Amino acid sequence: MGVGEIIADLFIIFAVAKLVGEVFQRWRQPPVIGELLAGVVIGPYGLGWIGQPGEALVQLFHEPALAQESLQLVYHVVAELGAIFLLFFVGLETRLSELLHVGPRAVGVAVGGVVLPFLLGAGLMLALGHPTLEAAFVGTALVATSVGITARVLSDLGYLHTVEARLILGAAVLDDILGMVALAIVSGVGTTGQVAPWQVATTAGLAIAFTLFAALVGTRAVRRFSIHLERLHLENAPFVVAVMVCLGLAALADMIGLAAIIGAFLAGLAFAEAREQYALEREALPVYQLLVPMFFVITGASVDWRVFLDGSLIGLALIVTALAVLGKVVGCGLGAWGLAPRSMAIVGIGMAPRGEVGLIVASLGQSLGAIPPAVFSLVVVMSVLTTLLVPPLLPLLFRGYQAPVAPAAGMGATRDAASVAPAVPQDAHLPDL
Amino acid sequence: MGVGEIIADLFIIFAVAKLVGEVFQRWRQPPVIGELLAGVVIGPYGLGWIGQPGEALVQLFHEPALAQESLQLVYHVVAELGAIFLLFFVGLETRLSELLHVGPRAVGVAVGGVVLPFLLGAGLMLALGHPTLEAAFVGTALVATSVGITARVLSDLGYLHTVEARLILGAAVLDDILGMVALAIVSGVGTTGQVAPWQVATTAGLAIAFTLFAALVGTRAVRRFSIHLERLHLENAPFVVAVMVCLGLAALADMIGLAAIIGAFLAGLAFAEAREQYALEREALPVYQLLVPMFFVITGASVDWRVFLDGSLIGLALIVTALAVLGKVVGCGLGAWGLAPRSMAIVGIGMAPRGEVGLIVASLGQSLGAIPPAVFSLVVVMSVLTTLLVPPLLPLLFRGYQAPVAPAAGMGATRDAASVAPAVPQDAHLPDL
Repeated sequence: MGVGEIIADLFIIFAVAKLVGEVFQRWRQPPVIGELLAGVVIGPYGLGWIGQPGEALVQLFHEPALAQESLQLVYHVVAELGAIFLLFFVGLETRLSELLHVGPRAVGVAVGGVVLPFLLGAGLMLALGHPTLEAAFVGTALVATSVGITARVLSDLGYLHTVEARLILGAAVLDDILGMVALAIVSGVGTTGQVAPWQVATTAGLAIAFTLFAALVGTRAVRRFSIHLERLHLENAPFVVAVMVCLGLAALADMIGLAAIIGAFLAGLAFAEAREQYALEREALPVYQLLVPMFFVITGASVDWRVFLDGSLIGLALIVTALAVLGKVVGCGLGAWGLAPRSMAIVGIGMAPRGEVGLIVASLGQSLGAIPPAVFSLVVVMSVLTTLLVPPLLPLLFRGYQAPVAPAAGMGATRDAASVAPAVPQDAHLPDL
Repeated sequence: MGVGEIIADLFIIFAVAKLVGEVFQRWRQPPVIGELLAGVVIGPYGLGWIGQPGEALVQLFHEPALAQESLQLVYHVVAELGAIFLLFFVGLETRLSELLHVGPRAVGVAVGGVVLPFLLGAGLMLALGHPTLEAAFVGTALVATSVGITARVLSDLGYLHTVEARLILGAAVLDDILGMVALAIVSGVGTTGQVAPWQVATTAGLAIAFTLFAALVGTRAVRRFSIHLERLHLENAPFVVAVMVCLGLAALADMIGLAAIIGAFLAGLAFAEAREQYALEREALPVYQLLVPMFFVITGASVDWRVFLDGSLIGLALIVTALAVLGKVVGCGLGAWGLAPRSMAIVGIGMAPRGEVGLIVASLGQSLGAIPPAVFSLVVVMSVLTTLLVPPLLPLLFRGYQAPVAPAAGMGATRDAASVAPAVPQDAHLPDL
């Protein structure tokens, strides 16, 4: 039935993730770097240990290409579940009060990190003589932050409770909403040739309503009703209900056009209110340890590094990448004005990874005929490089730095969570890379 | 990309599983009954809440049938992971010494439960005038026990530590080996027209060597080296390594023709030696609670109840089902000779579910042209009914019965595990069904 070979693949993914994780822990580097690199090495564009459909699958789908597609689908589902549990876990470690405390500044970071990358990306394309719509799509692909990788690095380093981490998480939620609005606008223009203000407003309104509802009402509901979870007959009911809400909000977020991980983060945020009461992190940790490393290996395995070999492309791709990083560092950094320069840099670099979000924008542009294949490859290189850059850069920026803990954390018992979090010790001296 | 809709499906599967689980816990019935029924109701042959590919998936695979196929593949992988973690967990609660203690009798149960169902199934077909090869395939489809459902019911009831449970688990491992040998023989005949003794011997030898190696060497290795797991830098290393071995042995078992869950069970059995030391069940439980109920909902959803509407078929199908149950009850019961009649009945009914194993045999027969579609449907009905019958029957058989705890359990601290196991309290009075 083809299931057996997929179980074998998942075993390879899991085993490799944990082996390199062990090595990177010994080297006191974030394991996520090892997981991503291992994914590149064992993936279908590397050694091909995973991602090659076997005989049974090819037989099931008649042709190799479709078998490959279905195998990718399974990987993507596993990876998405990993990303969902990652952000759920990060949400559990975050208090709404902490996010609200950094709220105004997070708005600045999000807006700065959306406007500047868009202008830089679109501007470059226009300057090179590309059509306006194409330029707008490239600009939009540079807008959206994929916060998973940063969240993982901060979690690995034990820095989830710093002001910088709170700012990044808060801004990432807003960034996703703004990015969605930008995408609604450019794809509206791409499809019908004009902006549909009503549709854009509906899209934006829905996303904002969902986020506010999940964050504010969800948090209050958990605070008020979580005591009743004990009365359920289900064993481990609080954890089970939290996971149910997590999957539900993730699916809902996806349905209204946001990233599924934003829904998972909001679910975690709500259940952070019942976290100590029910040791929810302790329960979530085994699932985290099972799925999250697979997310990063699979992400690494999806990197087709052959695009880097195209000499005619790589120069421009590096320029786009540089603008993508610069846009976030300067844009988000300015949005975080008033913090120390190092903190501004941390926030900017933390917002830099585009991950799959940039690719989704570019794919849409390609399917609308607005983006030619060469420009699509530019976005691929930009997405890959901004994602791979962050895990080694962030620890360097934190080096020798006593990061301040977010103020509202003092009110709850959030600090003790650090001991549960997958962490290189907070005081670890990070050696030279 | 189609991932979003699958996350929504998984949310529905998980939420429904837990809601009916809650209801069945209140009714003091094994939740697994509710999960199976809920699966039938929400599945593609019922309300269609799950299992219908959405637009994005159909676009990805060009035609609805292939999109459906790929969706099924994702479900099967999730379900298989659930079955793997179920048997891993059951293995963790089992001591090799307990299995060895019931060993000789388990051999009797396995042999009795293989020979009699084969003879009854093949005999009926021959008596009805079907060709010999077809009769042999039907007989073989009646051989293999799918132990997942029984393991879950015993776990739900808190009876994993009874002599009967040990006998069932030990016999199920042997049954899988014997069933594989039977399948190797009939499919050899189906393919080449003759038995290839050398190939059958290789197949059998490999399966026996794998099982003995995993059980004996694995157990010893864990007993001896598990202390060193603490020195790893990976957090939660003992649990992580146990899961790694579990996935690895599951994949390996599948590769050599055994059921993946047998590998998972053997992995659990090995790590049972380090269970108390590292609270492995506590760590495995959240993963169990996430995946195992999904296995049963997905199993329920795959039941195409429309085969029961075929009037020309259903009479014969019920006869085959009756023989399938009778074969196991009498065959396994006789194999367990010397136990109380009630215990013999428990073991026989516990070995009755054929689940997906019978279907795999019948599919193979169909692909070799040895089994016509109508006979395939007989096997489908038999598989479904034997599987659905056990969850309500087993609790009835245990009713008012002080099941003896397996002797070797007294040596370890296995009993305390019952408090961790998902359990209707052992002394719960089970109301009338």
